[in-house]
Amino acid sequence: MGALDEGHFDVELENTLNLGVEEEEPEIQAAVRVLLQGLGEDINREGIKKTPLRVAKALRHATTGYKRNAKDIIEGAIFPEAGLDNNRIGHAGGAGGLVIVRDLDLFSYCESCLLPFQVKCHVGYVPSGQRVVGLSKLSRVADVFAKRLQDPQRLADDMCSALQDSLKSAGIAVILQCHHIHFPALESMFLDSSTEGWIKGLVSSGSGVFEDEDANIWGELFSLLKFRSSIADKIQKRNSSNHWCPSQASTLNKISSSVGKAHPPSMVSAVTSIIRSLGEDPLRKELACTPAHFLNWLMNFQNCNMDMKLNSFVCNKAGPQKSNGTSIISRQIHSELNLPFWSQCEHHLLPFHGVVHIGYSSAEGVHPIGKSLLQSIVHFYGFKLQVQERFTRQVAETVAPLLGGDVIVVAEASHMCMISRGIEKFGSSTATVAVLGHFSTDAKARALFLESLPSMNNY
Amino acid sequence: MGALDEGHFDVELENTLNLGVEEEEPEIQAAVRVLLQGLGEDINREGIKKTPLRVAKALRHATTGYKRNAKDIIEGAIFPEAGLDNNRIGHAGGAGGLVIVRDLDLFSYCESCLLPFQVKCHVGYVPSGQRVVGLSKLSRVADVFAKRLQDPQRLADDMCSALQDSLKSAGIAVILQCHHIHFPALESMFLDSSTEGWIKGLVSSGSGVFEDEDANIWGELFSLLKFRSSIADKIQKRNSSNHWCPSQASTLNKISSSVGKAHPPSMVSAVTSIIRSLGEDPLRKELACTPAHFLNWLMNFQNCNMDMKLNSFVCNKAGPQKSNGTSIISRQIHSELNLPFWSQCEHHLLPFHGVVHIGYSSAEGVHPIGKSLLQSIVHFYGFKLQVQERFTRQVAETVAPLLGGDVIVVAEASHMCMISRGIEKFGSSTATVAVLGHFSTDAKARALFLESLPSMNNY
Repeated sequence: MGALDEGHFDVELENTLNLGVEEEEPEIQAAVRVLLQGLGEDINREGIKKTPLRVAKALRHATTGYKRNAKDIIEGAIFPEAGLDNNRIGHAGGAGGLVIVRDLDLFSYCESCLLPFQVKCHVGYVPSGQRVVGLSKLSRVADVFAKRLQDPQRLADDMCSALQDSLKSAGIAVILQCHHIHFPALESMFLDSSTEGWIKGLVSSGSGVFEDEDANIWGELFSLLKFRSSIADKIQKRNSSNHWCPSQASTLNKISSSVGKAHPPSMVSAVTSIIRSLGEDPLRKELACTPAHFLNWLMNFQNCNMDMKLNSFVCNKAGPQKSNGTSIISRQIHSELNLPFWSQCEHHLLPFHGVVHIGYSSAEGVHPIGKSLLQSIVHFYGFKLQVQERFTRQVAETVAPLLGGDVIVVAEASHMCMISRGIEKFGSSTATVAVLGHFSTDAKARALFLESLPSMNNY
Repeated sequence: MGALDEGHFDVELENTLNLGVEEEEPEIQAAVRVLLQGLGEDINREGIKKTPLRVAKALRHATTGYKRNAKDIIEGAIFPEAGLDNNRIGHAGGAGGLVIVRDLDLFSYCESCLLPFQVKCHVGYVPSGQRVVGLSKLSRVADVFAKRLQDPQRLADDMCSALQDSLKSAGIAVILQCHHIHFPALESMFLDSSTEGWIKGLVSSGSGVFEDEDANIWGELFSLLKFRSSIADKIQKRNSSNHWCPSQASTLNKISSSVGKAHPPSMVSAVTSIIRSLGEDPLRKELACTPAHFLNWLMNFQNCNMDMKLNSFVCNKAGPQKSNGTSIISRQIHSELNLPFWSQCEHHLLPFHGVVHIGYSSAEGVHPIGKSLLQSIVHFYGFKLQVQERFTRQVAETVAPLLGGDVIVVAEASHMCMISRGIEKFGSSTATVAVLGHFSTDAKARALFLESLPSMNNY
């Protein structure tokens, strides 16, 4: 089960991939091959043979900020705008009034673990010297600093000081709402599935009239950002000991050390080589532990070729049932909704995560199996290099014999590879469906289950 | 009032704009200069002297799809994925199960009026032949067809057939939720401000198992898109006579003809030249009226150099009041919220629109002026080439003498130039503030007003 039948694939299709860039970033590609082998993967397998190239391109795209200059961007788009006499009005008057660009979606790569994190960025400034900047430049400048290995506070500070240097306004404020994928704590994973998908960080940086964190103008900014509650209290204090990246959480490091899981030196060197290829100094203080942190994440997705030990799952097994022609509707549809999962896209070595919904019909005499067992099966297929389509099918095939044969499995997920790279489709998500038994022929049963799915996703 | 004091501007800053591309798309730049002159603008004014270049770059970016090929994109990213035996399962089973990518944000340019429209795109397909496509390719293919002059139904059909041709799946479904800026009907504008900002269009296209619009699988797709209501009824019927673009609305054409407003032939030729420069045939049926439609929109923003006829507004004028040291808090703060406005960004010749909120303190004896007068002032400053900062200041300066001198004006808007071009910050919005009189020194009064603003924007 789960082995790919690759014989049916028309290999000539794959060959049309733009071959001219095969040798793009050869050091990064070589490093990714080492990582794939370290995960126990066959680097010539169809799904991943171009993964080193894809990862190299994605990383290069994610770090173009090192080569760009915020000053050029801003100073090319400063426009004269008459303001009122400064003697007559206060700091927020006339053309000197507050200007805010809200809800700029960005992504950046975490310097602590090399995974992308999402940013909702808000920039405010108070024009002075009768000059305003083209609004889109605030977004472009944000991107210059986001497209580097970053930490939220530094990203906010970098943006703030670059804007202040070029714009020479009365003050700049930057607020970043950051979302970082949660690292599941594997040891408690199979017991506790309540872990949320995202870790949230809120940081700010201010200059000029925004330099004083208690200045009234911050309150005005928050009002216009529609942050109604006491957001100021939630902003992370500078130099606080709370590291936001879960790779720095003590529990994870404890797991890593308690299990004595030293990562293979070749894999550590590979990650170090990637960091160096991006133009960063792997010895920089903040990057020193990054290879270990990244591997703590990555090694969750090690390939295990052995079949799942199904025996231990088959407690209430009913066995796959032959279709007997009766509609499922006449039986009851049970469901287990919102089982979280984490996985790693095999095409880009980037996380995707979300929830699985399982529906099944219980014939009389079949006792439903427990949620924790279903959750374990979901995790088992999540923790490997995957594509969502295969993951969904594997879960369906595994749970079907345990649940009486008639199952429908829906996976809903956010894919980092749709957010980072050149795609940047921030709100997008993917749903996949697999059905077995009655569900494959009974449209009413499918509809009944699909309509019962929760309409709000918080993965 | 409203005249720019440009003497204070440090012109050397503007000169740093990348001069190397000055001659990019010379035909489009020449055409834009004709349009700007037709609007009565001085094409050497600081704010717009680079507008021809910016418009040329924006239009070129918006039409890169003509040079790209969906087939190359898809066939470079088809992956083998084992499925179950087709005999054992139905169309939605195993690896052949439904795959949906939801909420892809796109923009396209309306072929009927040359303004950008926003698209939320959902793609579903049923893999067959044991092949799946990389998820991000669905987004890239959408972009190939969106980056052309388009109509929603054709965009959906183009995507659907390109995906079907290359992917050879069991079926493709494309659903597009499109938002087009509303063309305010000028004749009723100053009487009725209830017009909503967006015109919404919902279209679909299907092939294979999705070809039958009544097939069950459409219902399954809608369930997974979380469209709970009877969305099928809302999907626009093919070849319906309802044109979605407001440029085609009969009222507008009536206005245009009843007023006998024939556009200057030089401006019509300029728009035709732009269409030709983009690689389109200006004689193509759907494009024949586009120059007239575009000019129907653009000519709303003609420059009028005369000062606003304030006399007619000053019905209840109290005159600007000298600060007398008493806090506004001790007087009552009145407000007029959500006054809609339309404007055209002078940097990119693209719309921005939203709402204005006006707050003022009423001293005793000052009778507040009516909402319709404030709305007229807002429209007066909206309907010209603008930047939001200046617009906000001009509204504040104009309403201040009518409202007792103490005013705060907040404008909140979506800018097409932040959505189209290379920016594509779909959820972003901009807020600007101008304050006069007591509001410039009284932080509590500002806070009181700002906190009273509605937290949901539906502009």
